[in-house]
Amino acid sequence: MDAAQQDGTSEAAAPAAAGGSEGTGARDVLLATTSAIMREGDLVDISLSELSLRSGLNSALVKYYFGNKAGLLTALLDRDMAAIVRSVDALVAKDDMTPEAKLRRHIAACIDTYYQYPYLNRLLMRLVRDSDDAEAERIAEKYLRPLQRAYGQLVGDGVRAGVFRPIDPQLFYFTMMGVADRFFSSRLVLRHCSGHDTLTEEWRDRYRAHTVDLIMAGILAK
Amino acid sequence: MDAAQQDGTSEAAAPAAAGGSEGTGARDVLLATTSAIMREGDLVDISLSELSLRSGLNSALVKYYFGNKAGLLTALLDRDMAAIVRSVDALVAKDDMTPEAKLRRHIAACIDTYYQYPYLNRLLMRLVRDSDDAEAERIAEKYLRPLQRAYGQLVGDGVRAGVFRPIDPQLFYFTMMGVADRFFSSRLVLRHCSGHDTLTEEWRDRYRAHTVDLIMAGILAK
Repeated sequence: MDAAQQDGTSEAAAPAAAGGSEGTGARDVLLATTSAIMREGDLVDISLSELSLRSGLNSALVKYYFGNKAGLLTALLDRDMAAIVRSVDALVAKDDMTPEAKLRRHIAACIDTYYQYPYLNRLLMRLVRDSDDAEAERIAEKYLRPLQRAYGQLVGDGVRAGVFRPIDPQLFYFTMMGVADRFFSSRLVLRHCSGHDTLTEEWRDRYRAHTVDLIMAGILAK
Repeated sequence: MDAAQQDGTSEAAAPAAAGGSEGTGARDVLLATTSAIMREGDLVDISLSELSLRSGLNSALVKYYFGNKAGLLTALLDRDMAAIVRSVDALVAKDDMTPEAKLRRHIAACIDTYYQYPYLNRLLMRLVRDSDDAEAERIAEKYLRPLQRAYGQLVGDGVRAGVFRPIDPQLFYFTMMGVADRFFSSRLVLRHCSGHDTLTEEWRDRYRAHTVDLIMAGILAK
C-alpha cells in the first residue's frame, strides 16, 4: 500500500496540471479527477460536466474509455483496489519482517489509504449493490477474498508464532476496515460536530498513531 | 443502550403483529416498520407503498405524523439516537461501576445497537447531508456532541485513574463507531464475499466477544 502513503494532496490538485493528459493518458486523468472530486465532496457520485470541467477533457471520452458513468466508477474501484491487494500481498510475502512489524505497517497503510480514498468502502458497497451477480462475484473474487486470505496469513502467522493473541483473522478484517474507513468517510458530517475537517494531514497523522497504538496493544500477546 | 440489547429479531417481525396499532400507536408502528425494512434491506431508504403494505397502515398517515418521507426518516433518527444518548449518559452516571466495567459494557452495547439498527450511521450521514444548516446543527447539538462529551468522561475517567492508557477520547469515539458500524452495515456485500449473512445472532455474539476482547486489551494499562 506504499502508493497510498504518498501525500494525498497531490491527487487533490487539478490532475491536468499535475500530469497532463499527454503524460499519463486521458484515461488516467479521468480516473484521477473522479477520485479527487469524490474525495473532496465526500460523495460516491460524480457529475460528468464537473468531471469535464475539472479534467479539461471532453466528457465524450468517458463514453470512449468507460462506456458510461457506471463503467468509470468500476474502473476507479479496480484502480484503487488492485493497488491495495498488490501491496498487501507484497507485505505478506516479505521474508525479512516479523508478523508484528508487518501488522504495524499494514495498520498505518490502511489509515493512509482511506485518507487518500475516503470514498472507497462506499464505492465498493454501491458497485456490489448495483451490479448483477456476475459482476458482484468478480469484485468479490478479485479483491475481497484475496484480502481476506492475506489477513489469514498476516494475522494467522502471528497467532501461530505466539506473538499475537488468538484473534480471528476474518473478524479482525472487519475491525480494520471499520476503523480505517469511518474517520475519513464522514468528514462533512463531523465538521458540523467538531468544527474541524478530519481530512487533513495533521488529523491523519494523529489518527494513524492512535490506531496503530490501540490495535497493536489489543492484539499483542502479553 | 439497554434497549438495544434485546433480541433484535422481534423488531424484524411484522410490527403490526408484534404490538398492534392500538397498543403502541400508529406513529410508533410506522417508525418500527421503517426501521425493520431498512434493517432487512441494508438500505437507508424506504418506499411508502412497502411501508403501507408491511405496517397495514394507510400511507396518508405518514403525511399526518411526519409531513413527508424526510420527516419520517428524521423521526426514526431521533427515536434511535435519543435512546442511545440516554443509555450512554445513564452508564456514565453510574457510581457503583469501575471505568473498566463501564467501557466493557459500552462496547458490547455498541455492537448490539448496530446489530439492531445497522442503518443508523448511514441515516445520520444522509440526514446531515440533506438538511439545511439549522437541522444539521440540531442533530449535532442533540446527539453528536452529547456522545462526544460522554466519551470524554467514559474514557477520561479511566485515563485519570490510571486504568486506561492515555487514549484520546475523541479519537476513540471514531474507533468505536467504525468498529461497531462496519460489520453489520455492509452485510449484503459481505454475503457475496463470505457466503454468510452477518446479521444473525450467532455472528453478533462472535463479533461482540471479538471486539470487547480486542478493544479492552488495547486500552487497558499494563
